[in-house]
Amino acid sequence: MSGEFERIASLRRLTAGRGRGVVLGVGDDGALLEPRPGFDTVISSDLLVEGVHFRRFWMTPEQLGFKAIAVSLSDLAAMGAAPSAILLGLGLPADVDDAFLEAFYRGATALAGRFEATIVGGDLSSSPGGLFVDSVLVGHVEQGRALRRDRARDGQDVYVSGVLGTSAAGLRLLESQDVRESRPGCYDSFVRAHLAPEPRVELGRELVLRGLASAAIDLSDGLSSDARHVATASSVGIVIDGDAVPAPAGLEPALHGGEQYELLFTADVGRRDALETLSVEIGLPLARIGRADRSVTGCWIEVEGRRDPLDPAGFDHFGSMRRRPDEF
Amino acid sequence: MSGEFERIASLRRLTAGRGRGVVLGVGDDGALLEPRPGFDTVISSDLLVEGVHFRRFWMTPEQLGFKAIAVSLSDLAAMGAAPSAILLGLGLPADVDDAFLEAFYRGATALAGRFEATIVGGDLSSSPGGLFVDSVLVGHVEQGRALRRDRARDGQDVYVSGVLGTSAAGLRLLESQDVRESRPGCYDSFVRAHLAPEPRVELGRELVLRGLASAAIDLSDGLSSDARHVATASSVGIVIDGDAVPAPAGLEPALHGGEQYELLFTADVGRRDALETLSVEIGLPLARIGRADRSVTGCWIEVEGRRDPLDPAGFDHFGSMRRRPDEF
Repeated sequence: MSGEFERIASLRRLTAGRGRGVVLGVGDDGALLEPRPGFDTVISSDLLVEGVHFRRFWMTPEQLGFKAIAVSLSDLAAMGAAPSAILLGLGLPADVDDAFLEAFYRGATALAGRFEATIVGGDLSSSPGGLFVDSVLVGHVEQGRALRRDRARDGQDVYVSGVLGTSAAGLRLLESQDVRESRPGCYDSFVRAHLAPEPRVELGRELVLRGLASAAIDLSDGLSSDARHVATASSVGIVIDGDAVPAPAGLEPALHGGEQYELLFTADVGRRDALETLSVEIGLPLARIGRADRSVTGCWIEVEGRRDPLDPAGFDHFGSMRRRPDEF
Repeated sequence: MSGEFERIASLRRLTAGRGRGVVLGVGDDGALLEPRPGFDTVISSDLLVEGVHFRRFWMTPEQLGFKAIAVSLSDLAAMGAAPSAILLGLGLPADVDDAFLEAFYRGATALAGRFEATIVGGDLSSSPGGLFVDSVLVGHVEQGRALRRDRARDGQDVYVSGVLGTSAAGLRLLESQDVRESRPGCYDSFVRAHLAPEPRVELGRELVLRGLASAAIDLSDGLSSDARHVATASSVGIVIDGDAVPAPAGLEPALHGGEQYELLFTADVGRRDALETLSVEIGLPLARIGRADRSVTGCWIEVEGRRDPLDPAGFDHFGSMRRRPDEF
C-alpha cells in the first residue's frame, strides 16, 4: 500500500480539473470557491460508517463511492440547491488497498460529474476500526428560495417522488444469507435502490426554479419520521392517504423504511397541473399522498377510511446494526 | 444513553443562535449561508480519529471538542480566511455518553465562539470502532487574496509564527507511562501545545488585510514536510537557517514534529518592519527563519555554516499509531 503523500498525489490526479466556481481544489490548506452573488450557499454532510450504514462485502468500492455522494446530494436536492463542490473525509482500515480507493473515487466522481460537482478537498486517515466516509456537499440556491422543512402551509398538498420502501426491502435482501454469499454486483431492483439511490437533484432544482413547492425534505429517515419533521417545523398537521403511497414493496417499508432518497414536498393546490407537467418532463413519478392540515396535530395515515396516528416505527432493519440517525 | 433524535434536539439547543451570515443552521437537510459578494469561500476539513490522532484517556471531552475545531481553523488561518460556519461529523462508540457529548460541544463552541463561527450542521452516527470527528470549516477571504502554497517567490523571506516542536514534545510526554496514569487536565506547556493548539486565525487575517504575505501553509505535517509543499507548489527552493528556528524543545522536533498549528509564510524583504509591527500588535512572535531561492531545488537547512538537505524525516512519533497524513 502506498504512503499517504503518494495517495494524496494520486487523489489530485483522480480529482483533477476545476469545476464550476472552483478557484482552487485539492492541494492547499483549503479549497477556494468564487462568490455567487444572488445565491445562498447550502452545505450538508453525511456519514457512512462500516457496520452501521453498510457492510463492505455487500457492495463494490465504486458503489460505496457512488452512495457516499448520493446521500449528500440528496440533502442538497431537498433544499432545491445545485451542487458545486465536495469534500470527502475518509477513514481507511489497513486492509483497504489503493485499488479499492481508486475504485471508490471512480464511483464518487462518476456521480458527482453528472451534476457538475467537483471533489475539492477533504482528509484521509487510517482507521483502527472500520471504513468510514464523511461526505460534505456544497451547493447554491437562489437567495431566499431554498426549500425548507418549516415552510409547509395549511391546505397544501403533500407529494413524494418515485417509489418508497424499496431501499428497506433491498436491505432485507442484503441481510439475508443468500446475498451474503453472492458477490457484489449481482442485484435486483430493490437492492439497487438501497445501494445506488438516485438523488433527486433535478426535481429539487425545478421545484425552486418553477416556484412549485414551499417545504421539502428527503426521506432518509423514512416517511413516518420525515413527515413528522416537516409537521413539527411548520407547526401544521399532515394527513397521509395510505392508498396513494407508492409502495411496490408493501406499505410497511414504504412508511417506515429509512435510507430512501426520494423527496417529500408540499405545494399549493393550484400547482397540481404544473407538477403533472414537471413529472412528465423529468420522467419521475410525483405522487400526491396527502395534505397539510392545521386542524390536526402531528402525522396521521388514512387507510380504507380509517385514520390512525403515523408514528415513527423505528424500522430497525439492521438487527445488530443501528438505525441511521438523522443528520442534525 | 438518549436516542439519536433526542441527541439532535439537544445539539440544536447547544448550537442555538445564528452566526454571522448564517440564514439557517442546525435542523434542516442543509445549512444556508447568505452570499458574500467580493469574498471567496474557503472550505476545509480535518479528521481526528481515536487511536490515530488522539487517545481518549489523554484529554477531556472539552479538549477534544476544542482541538477538533482548532485543527480546521488552522487551515482557514493558513488561507487568510475568517471562519463563519462549522459542520461536525461524529462517529460515537457505545461507551460515549451524553455527558461526554455535551462536554465535547462545550469545548467546540467555546473556541468557535471566539472567532464568531457557528456550528450549523453535520451528522451523527454510532461507530463500532473508535470515536472519530470530521471537522469542516467554512470561511471567507477577500476575493483573489487567499494565501496559497503556490505563491512563494524567489528572494522572499520565510517566516514561522510562535514556537515549533512543542506539540511533538507534548505528545512524547503523553505517550510516556507517567501521563497515561494521570488524569486528563494535568499538563505542562508542551502537552498543552499538543492538546489545545492555538489556531493563528488573527495572524492569517492580518497578513491578508495588510498585504504582507504571498504564500502560507500551516505546519500540521511538520516544518520539513510543509516547507517542501510550498517549495514544490511554488517551484522555488527554500533555505532554512537552523539557528533561527524557534525550537524550545530542540531542533529535531521543531523541524520534523507534526501537528503544530503555527503558520509558515513568505513575505517580500521590504515587509520586515511591517511584520515586526504586526508581531507586537497581535502579541505573537514571528521568526524569520529563511528565504525562498530559485537557484536551489527543494528544501535545505543551514546549521553552523553547513548546508544539508531538509528532507521530511517522517517523525513517526506514534509507534503503533500512524502519522497524521496531510489533508488533501
